[in-house]
Amino acid sequence: MNAPEQILRLTVNGDRLWQSLMDMARIGATPKGGVKRIALTPEDKAGRDQFVAWCRAAGLAVRIDRMGNIFARRAGVDAAAAPVMSGSHLDTQPSGGRFDGCYGVMAALEVCRSLDDYGIRTRAPLEVAVWTNEEGSRFTPVMEGSGVFVGAFTLEHARAQTDADGIAMGDALDAIGYSGETPMGFPVAAYFEAHIEQGPVLEDAGKVIGVVEGGLGQRWFNLTVTGMEAHAGPTPMRLRRDALQGATHIMQAIDALGRLTPSTRATVGYVKVEPNSRNVIPGRVTFSADLRAATVDELAQLESGMRAAAERVCRERGLTLAIEQTVEFPPTPFAPACRDAVRAAAARFGYPHMDLVSGAGHDAIYLASVCPTGMIFVPCKDGISHNEIEDAKPSDLTAGANVLLHAMLDRAGVA
Amino acid sequence: MNAPEQILRLTVNGDRLWQSLMDMARIGATPKGGVKRIALTPEDKAGRDQFVAWCRAAGLAVRIDRMGNIFARRAGVDAAAAPVMSGSHLDTQPSGGRFDGCYGVMAALEVCRSLDDYGIRTRAPLEVAVWTNEEGSRFTPVMEGSGVFVGAFTLEHARAQTDADGIAMGDALDAIGYSGETPMGFPVAAYFEAHIEQGPVLEDAGKVIGVVEGGLGQRWFNLTVTGMEAHAGPTPMRLRRDALQGATHIMQAIDALGRLTPSTRATVGYVKVEPNSRNVIPGRVTFSADLRAATVDELAQLESGMRAAAERVCRERGLTLAIEQTVEFPPTPFAPACRDAVRAAAARFGYPHMDLVSGAGHDAIYLASVCPTGMIFVPCKDGISHNEIEDAKPSDLTAGANVLLHAMLDRAGVA
Repeated sequence: MNAPEQILRLTVNGDRLWQSLMDMARIGATPKGGVKRIALTPEDKAGRDQFVAWCRAAGLAVRIDRMGNIFARRAGVDAAAAPVMSGSHLDTQPSGGRFDGCYGVMAALEVCRSLDDYGIRTRAPLEVAVWTNEEGSRFTPVMEGSGVFVGAFTLEHARAQTDADGIAMGDALDAIGYSGETPMGFPVAAYFEAHIEQGPVLEDAGKVIGVVEGGLGQRWFNLTVTGMEAHAGPTPMRLRRDALQGATHIMQAIDALGRLTPSTRATVGYVKVEPNSRNVIPGRVTFSADLRAATVDELAQLESGMRAAAERVCRERGLTLAIEQTVEFPPTPFAPACRDAVRAAAARFGYPHMDLVSGAGHDAIYLASVCPTGMIFVPCKDGISHNEIEDAKPSDLTAGANVLLHAMLDRAGVA
Repeated sequence: MNAPEQILRLTVNGDRLWQSLMDMARIGATPKGGVKRIALTPEDKAGRDQFVAWCRAAGLAVRIDRMGNIFARRAGVDAAAAPVMSGSHLDTQPSGGRFDGCYGVMAALEVCRSLDDYGIRTRAPLEVAVWTNEEGSRFTPVMEGSGVFVGAFTLEHARAQTDADGIAMGDALDAIGYSGETPMGFPVAAYFEAHIEQGPVLEDAGKVIGVVEGGLGQRWFNLTVTGMEAHAGPTPMRLRRDALQGATHIMQAIDALGRLTPSTRATVGYVKVEPNSRNVIPGRVTFSADLRAATVDELAQLESGMRAAAERVCRERGLTLAIEQTVEFPPTPFAPACRDAVRAAAARFGYPHMDLVSGAGHDAIYLASVCPTGMIFVPCKDGISHNEIEDAKPSDLTAGANVLLHAMLDRAGVA
């Protein structure tokens, strides 16, 4: 079985992968066909217990760190080598779907199970990872487990975060028995994450595999435009300083800036109008701008374009402007070697594939700061996720797992 | 004193008018210099009691109807003649000012007091009116007392309206002792109302007296634009159906329509974005349109222009549109004879004056449906009202009362 030409044709067991996904989807299943498995709740514990049981049944060595991150290792021939890791998260949004996160974990587990089926050993160990609280629905920030793993923030900070009921994240971990003893962080040779796209690009292009080039950088802002609140009836148009009308021009400029390149995005998602009364000219409008781009240069172009447009609009209309930045994530290009491994595997199977960027956050974005990283996207129906109607095709999910198998073998080496 | 040339030079006692305004402003005075005298509260009762005491001291005959409207009559020589009426309201917004409403009542009272000073009798009786719940802050609708007086809706309907605590308007009237026995509605020969402008037009033009041509007609709408909610990160600009971006184009079209004539207005005051999350492309935006114009033809042009723009924007962007009308008030031109009487008085005193429209609602708008009606506007500082900083100049308030005096004499006739 170890002859290269045979190895290059190996595939995972797609039926078993689908069955695992469906079995896991029963834990926290919602009446509408979605999943509610919020981080560190009894449902999350049940999902973790199921995953650990499957790992032990597959002969994987399970460790848990102080953040509740779970690592299930398949030994390599070279015991001293750093592992080639793959995983994602098992927690969901309050009205989540069956595939967001769970697919990346189940695909990595399926890679190990399939290698067992074929009796193939790798040089470096393989490691399936489950990251704690990726969604950030109960505890902030998002991607908390992987963030602490890579040192983006401290264990103490993360464990001290409280939910809406005042329960500390560390206490919640203790309560479900997933506050482990494994020290935080260890060397990783490479990290891959398979994930549904959570966007419409692959479906729109008719592709099965997205070779993720990296994560977009993000800059978020709050803009506040202040004019003069006045009664709609007695105030002629020419004497108004309408904060909302000014804001609409800035919002349109932000949208136009998002079209700078195919991968840039600019979104106004939040708007607050004051006093928000039908017969009062708005005196103040606060709104958000979410700017994303693949390079720092493009991000800077988006920001400066937004600032210039906002200042021009407010100057022309006698409005005052305040801009506050609330979020900054740098662009994260993935390692060429990992991207190439994903692309080559997709090409070898003849899967329609394309390069694309990850506009959303993923644990892989954090891992990229400590090791060569790649991601594999598969289509999801209508690009919808974070929704109980989230859906994906079994054939696409199998294709993604096949690509993951060969990307991991590429980096780990067949013994 | 009754020789015409002397009568034409008569003026009110501006100091007494100002003192009455300041005395009334102490009832419900707020720390910031405004007034909180919400309809049918203990403060409103205290204000009414003060007004009634002043009227009785001035020898006026006080009557109260079932809506709590107060009428204080100064007898005319012709006891059978219908009265020439003037008044406004004593209730305020929760954070109201010293002049909105109160000025019209005190100016009418001052007219009666000044005629007593001069020993002048009129042919027709004069009647000072205080209308119940003009502001609509506690009970809806606005202009409730004058609305029932003219038959716009029934006494039973109005008295059954409840406040936020479930207290019926009729019970609140009973509780403060202002549910009177005078039958609803009676013939009125003419109605005048002096009021602060509540807008910036007079101040901007450097005028002291506004000769009100009539009330603008109003049509209010709720527009709902629906696109596709999606994650801001993974969704490229070209694949979006952003409800907010579409809505901004409609909002701008509405503002542009408001510039059809100097007296038309079009305002978007209320906006609701869903889900209103910083990193989610808005799936639905609901917003208001408040269209006002002096003629039915202009109102129809505003409405059809808005509908056409909204339909075009939604068609071009793959959005769906729903438009619901919520308010309809027809335009109310005032009687030429009353407008002429106001204009002539302003001209005779040499007050800088101009014709303008009333964009806001006033009791006079309802009275215009049953008798010849006119209004006199005086400037308020920066056009601001419904605010504790509402302010007006004593000299302007005196000028308005002088014009009111002569407009009333013109219609009532000097005996």
